[in-house]
Amino acid sequence: MGELALIEWIRGHAIGAGAGEVVVGPGDDAAILRIGAELVAFATDAVVAGIHFGPGAAGSAVGWKALAANVSDLAAVGAEPVASVAAVALGTPGGDEYGRAVYEGLAACAAEFGCPVVGGDVSAAPEGAATVVSVSVIGRFAGGARPVLRSGAAPGQPVYVTGELGGSGLGRHMEFRPRLAEGLWLAREGLAAAMIDVSDGLAADIAHICRESGVGAVIDEGAVPVSAAAREAAEESGRTALEHALADGEDFELLFTVAPGDAAGLESGWPTDLRLTRLGETTDRAGEIVLRTAAGGEGPIGVGGYEHGLGGGGAGGAGGSGA
Amino acid sequence: MGELALIEWIRGHAIGAGAGEVVVGPGDDAAILRIGAELVAFATDAVVAGIHFGPGAAGSAVGWKALAANVSDLAAVGAEPVASVAAVALGTPGGDEYGRAVYEGLAACAAEFGCPVVGGDVSAAPEGAATVVSVSVIGRFAGGARPVLRSGAAPGQPVYVTGELGGSGLGRHMEFRPRLAEGLWLAREGLAAAMIDVSDGLAADIAHICRESGVGAVIDEGAVPVSAAAREAAEESGRTALEHALADGEDFELLFTVAPGDAAGLESGWPTDLRLTRLGETTDRAGEIVLRTAAGGEGPIGVGGYEHGLGGGGAGGAGGSGA
Repeated sequence: MGELALIEWIRGHAIGAGAGEVVVGPGDDAAILRIGAELVAFATDAVVAGIHFGPGAAGSAVGWKALAANVSDLAAVGAEPVASVAAVALGTPGGDEYGRAVYEGLAACAAEFGCPVVGGDVSAAPEGAATVVSVSVIGRFAGGARPVLRSGAAPGQPVYVTGELGGSGLGRHMEFRPRLAEGLWLAREGLAAAMIDVSDGLAADIAHICRESGVGAVIDEGAVPVSAAAREAAEESGRTALEHALADGEDFELLFTVAPGDAAGLESGWPTDLRLTRLGETTDRAGEIVLRTAAGGEGPIGVGGYEHGLGGGGAGGAGGSGA
Repeated sequence: MGELALIEWIRGHAIGAGAGEVVVGPGDDAAILRIGAELVAFATDAVVAGIHFGPGAAGSAVGWKALAANVSDLAAVGAEPVASVAAVALGTPGGDEYGRAVYEGLAACAAEFGCPVVGGDVSAAPEGAATVVSVSVIGRFAGGARPVLRSGAAPGQPVYVTGELGGSGLGRHMEFRPRLAEGLWLAREGLAAAMIDVSDGLAADIAHICRESGVGAVIDEGAVPVSAAAREAAEESGRTALEHALADGEDFELLFTVAPGDAAGLESGWPTDLRLTRLGETTDRAGEIVLRTAAGGEGPIGVGGYEHGLGGGGAGGAGGSGA
């Protein structure tokens, strides 16, 4: 079952009222809860051996990735990390030393991004089973920040992305740094109208924003910040580097829209050295995501995004259509 | 690696300060965080195919168990559920229908205990890998309730347990009802001094309370509420039903101490039909846990608890010594 299909199903079956108010339920990068006077972000992400990391991955890199992917979810809604918990099913790879290395990777990421690991559950998985590291995080909104959702975009808004895209599978997917400082700044300054982290691939993730916001988008082909890794991947795959930048998953960059009047302030005030690229803009053609060539032609973006758990993204697949 | 050993290790390596205050870190049933003016409980628990459920378990029972174990953790600290998130790695058993059934089980438990599932992550685990369902929960303390910790016991306090113990592996471990109403009542009334849910087995869990509180305990052999399932298990295992009641894990009952002056009020005010048993009392012999026979003799409790992920509890193992 694909993640999207099951999340759709969960959405239709959200059940039960708790002791807090569910401000935003399943389907965004994090759920948003009101507990007393506080708004709290709550998210979970798991990494599975053979799917999200290979047999040769160091335990410490696996731990880092598991927590970093969660911190990236908090960044994408503009929430500051409060704490994390980790449930580790140690199969293959496994063993005591491997388990400790996983926790060392979690601890390194926790220290780096201020997201202490405050609880854990460890199970030995049966012989031959894949190791699974599941992390959940809580975040809060401080300094006047409000939650930034996928649904906040309006037509005619510039679309931006941080960093460079594509080829993450060559190595960066295990050692990326979530864009927390940038996400918090965008939320505090009230600049991001809609935001998501690029985990499924640029084409798929812009489609998520478009779908939730009821808009379309035009992406300038020449603007896409193609990474060196995307070019390297293209040499072997027979696809273009641009296709990798559009379709590969696990970049963990931030993709967001801003009100037209905020673009200048965004660009002049950008708080870090991280590359910031204006990709194009949203349109009122709901669900239509098109690639604009240098010559001014437009065509469907035509690449599938990376759907977690189903292997790498491939050209021409579903998922990027924004339907 | 055993859960206890790794949790010890995590404790020594808790790293990083987040945007909230960590009031209670790893090692209790839930971590306690202060976020603004709110105290929040945060816990995680995973169920792994081949360890926590068998190949024939229905997906809905697996989903129920995964969330119910987490609600039990909240009950044990006296926190009211706010929301949960679930990360599902679908291996074997797996497939679309199985995945949906897992979520149906989660949803049923969510509705029953007011703990909505507000986020999810679904991965296809590789061929042959075990299905892992990892759930995390957030709880809050309402109506004047304060967190009840394992460390709150003092010498000379009566020790109580809810329900009946042992033989949970025959079926109850998949369909237990967490003792939420009782845990919330105990916390709201300020009656429980220390509390834990019986997941590792009575002997191991009383040892956890003793270790964290720096006390010992005497358990009256004749008082232990031996379940019919424990007697049934004894017929096949060659061990006694009492041994099963002391050592088997996953009863998910509440084990707690109260101040001597509160015992009468506890027993007269007990809010539900659930059986409540006075097992014995805490002592000032730190770490010593003894079984008192009807004749008044005392002996070491001498059974190992169930350590999650390492198979069922066995007689004579480590873990129940309270060292």
